[in-house]
Amino acid sequence: MRAIFIAVGSELLDLDRVDTNSIYVARRLREKGILMDMKVVVGDHMDNLSWIVKKACQRAQLVILSGGLGPTEDDITREAVATALKKELVFREEIVSELQGIFKRRGMDMPEINARQAFVIEGAEVIPNPVGTAPGLYCEEGGCKVLLLPGPPNELIPIFEAVFEKHLAPASNYFIYSRTFKLTGISESEADSRCADIYRRYRNPVTTILASPGMIEFHFLGRSRNSDEEARRLTDELAEKVRERLKDFIFAEKEISLPEVVVEGLKARGLSLAVAESCTGGGLGNQVTSVPGSSEVFLGGVIAYANSVKTGLLGVREETLKRHGAVSEATAAEMAAGVRKLCGAAIGLSVTGIAGPGGDNPKKPLGLVYMHLSAENCEQGMRQIFTGNREVVKLRSEYYALNLVREYLNQYSADGKK
Amino acid sequence: MRAIFIAVGSELLDLDRVDTNSIYVARRLREKGILMDMKVVVGDHMDNLSWIVKKACQRAQLVILSGGLGPTEDDITREAVATALKKELVFREEIVSELQGIFKRRGMDMPEINARQAFVIEGAEVIPNPVGTAPGLYCEEGGCKVLLLPGPPNELIPIFEAVFEKHLAPASNYFIYSRTFKLTGISESEADSRCADIYRRYRNPVTTILASPGMIEFHFLGRSRNSDEEARRLTDELAEKVRERLKDFIFAEKEISLPEVVVEGLKARGLSLAVAESCTGGGLGNQVTSVPGSSEVFLGGVIAYANSVKTGLLGVREETLKRHGAVSEATAAEMAAGVRKLCGAAIGLSVTGIAGPGGDNPKKPLGLVYMHLSAENCEQGMRQIFTGNREVVKLRSEYYALNLVREYLNQYSADGKK
Repeated sequence: MRAIFIAVGSELLDLDRVDTNSIYVARRLREKGILMDMKVVVGDHMDNLSWIVKKACQRAQLVILSGGLGPTEDDITREAVATALKKELVFREEIVSELQGIFKRRGMDMPEINARQAFVIEGAEVIPNPVGTAPGLYCEEGGCKVLLLPGPPNELIPIFEAVFEKHLAPASNYFIYSRTFKLTGISESEADSRCADIYRRYRNPVTTILASPGMIEFHFLGRSRNSDEEARRLTDELAEKVRERLKDFIFAEKEISLPEVVVEGLKARGLSLAVAESCTGGGLGNQVTSVPGSSEVFLGGVIAYANSVKTGLLGVREETLKRHGAVSEATAAEMAAGVRKLCGAAIGLSVTGIAGPGGDNPKKPLGLVYMHLSAENCEQGMRQIFTGNREVVKLRSEYYALNLVREYLNQYSADGKK
Repeated sequence: MRAIFIAVGSELLDLDRVDTNSIYVARRLREKGILMDMKVVVGDHMDNLSWIVKKACQRAQLVILSGGLGPTEDDITREAVATALKKELVFREEIVSELQGIFKRRGMDMPEINARQAFVIEGAEVIPNPVGTAPGLYCEEGGCKVLLLPGPPNELIPIFEAVFEKHLAPASNYFIYSRTFKLTGISESEADSRCADIYRRYRNPVTTILASPGMIEFHFLGRSRNSDEEARRLTDELAEKVRERLKDFIFAEKEISLPEVVVEGLKARGLSLAVAESCTGGGLGNQVTSVPGSSEVFLGGVIAYANSVKTGLLGVREETLKRHGAVSEATAAEMAAGVRKLCGAAIGLSVTGIAGPGGDNPKKPLGLVYMHLSAENCEQGMRQIFTGNREVVKLRSEYYALNLVREYLNQYSADGKK
């Protein structure tokens, strides 16, 4: 079954709001194997809305609309859907009585304007709204189920659930199972080329790859007409093959961020962390302290943007700067060791690099970054040339540096005590 | 002109991400009087995507797509649009050379897979991507302008701007004039209540208020069919009235961020800055170092998350912590003075607070933050109780702290030498 969601409201086109309605509905539908193909956001404009409803009903077997069921002039969803389906709007006296009752219980008379909410698409089922005044509407037309829901989430959810239970879930014929890998320390194209030969052989499960600076996500979604077990087996089969190729880079298989993984790992081992940041300029500390409770393991550190701070606070030697430069393996190592000592931390972590624009030279290109982890019995450095603008280079550096901690913590637990 | 925006990516249907691309594009189009009718989010599915592109091109005069231009198998936008427009994809050797160059500069060979990005819709104009590997594509077909943009905002924006300048803005038939005020140091509801009686009287210009943590933007957009001057006069009339009420909080009237304003101000006066951060954990330094060239004036500082770092590095007195606590006016003052001395900076700036969740008590509620600026002949503290979650409290603290610097710099120049 194909589903299209249409969110109605001019304000949704303008403002940076998350449309939680479509996400909620998509998630519930997927649980029954109904995939949402498309989501449309359309303003309160009669022609546009009836156009897209008409097209959607030709294309999909399920069209769900949210919003535009209120009593005012710009609430046009009922009329636009009726136009699209070539149906009349009919006045239902019993809805007016219902609305009058709602207002009476609030100690008010029903405003004349609310009578508009008693116009319904002919033949549609009226689904009561337990919270507000706008009832939901459900109808079937030419093989397409059409559902009109009010926009406020607390009104939408109970009405959707009533229709889901009665009309949608029984029509579902898929079982679904999904898995996620989150990776860092590898580029998108490198990750893809390592396992494309595997996942491309599968049309079920569907593989989706998402890249953001410093991080990649693999999503696998398996479907079965037969059973939950089959969906799970299909998904697991592919996911395990991909995992075998990428396991060194997977830091999570659930909704958890890399900073959270690192903070959890530090807590579990009773280790503390301090940072020395040059090109990230505080971004690394900012990542770590985005995690609630990070104060248990994160002591702080030094933002050593100027060389005078590198030498004066962190104890980087003048000679090191002179011989190797501020962006070098040696400087990164001295920064990490310096901050570890200065803060009395178990682990010192440093970043120094060229985030750009400018500051590069033929030997030291834009995006060149050195990271270093210093701990008792462990000195681990890394050199990378990151692509992207200043912000992206900073973010990538932060993720790769945190990944050094993750890798260290993994060894740590494996060896008992490192 | 009718515009439809199509965001491509299965993940956009699933995850609660704000699609900032469509908001950015809608705003820019509106400045030229082009209204966005509709936004569609569609998964990485060939049939669905080419179907909606075909319908959109029949309906609108401008169709803008974002995403799905990467090198992997699930990047299908080029092919889907070609199918919808009944065009061929043609291989452009010069794009491969371009891509090889990009990878070479990173010291890498181009992965074979990236050659897919050299397939372009026949007859389309290729718009170079200054940041990433996916070029943009622009073509016109049957009276409809079609634009394909990469998904990452930092790649989308420069390509969109290039096409906007060349192909879209000249096609507009309104004169438009817009002005923007960027404010900090005041809440959205406070700002609104100070001037709502003014801007509500105007339907042209349209006033839009956008709030993000720590910052508020007022946009005024005046339109005229007659002349540029009329649009400008209408907009100025309203904007100046609003400015009169809010001038103390306006830090910019153009597209510039507060960190940029601060870095520019420091440069102009030859002053250096160091930061001491507790609850922001590096976020303040991260804001400052987001500005290219900030290294001229930003020395660095100390992330003093643990009290031991506050006393050991910054020289906050044990007695101060004992009597007033780490989140106090006195601690903030000693942190700022300490980091100024430690780094040899003209200005020391500190933040200490309770970002939550947890760590609060009846006397010190969640969101309580002290900020302090220390300079020669100036000690300026500020206490705020910010609402919002951990991330929002951190961001608000960063902005309000930077605003202390902005205010200090304004006085500085006014008094000649402070």
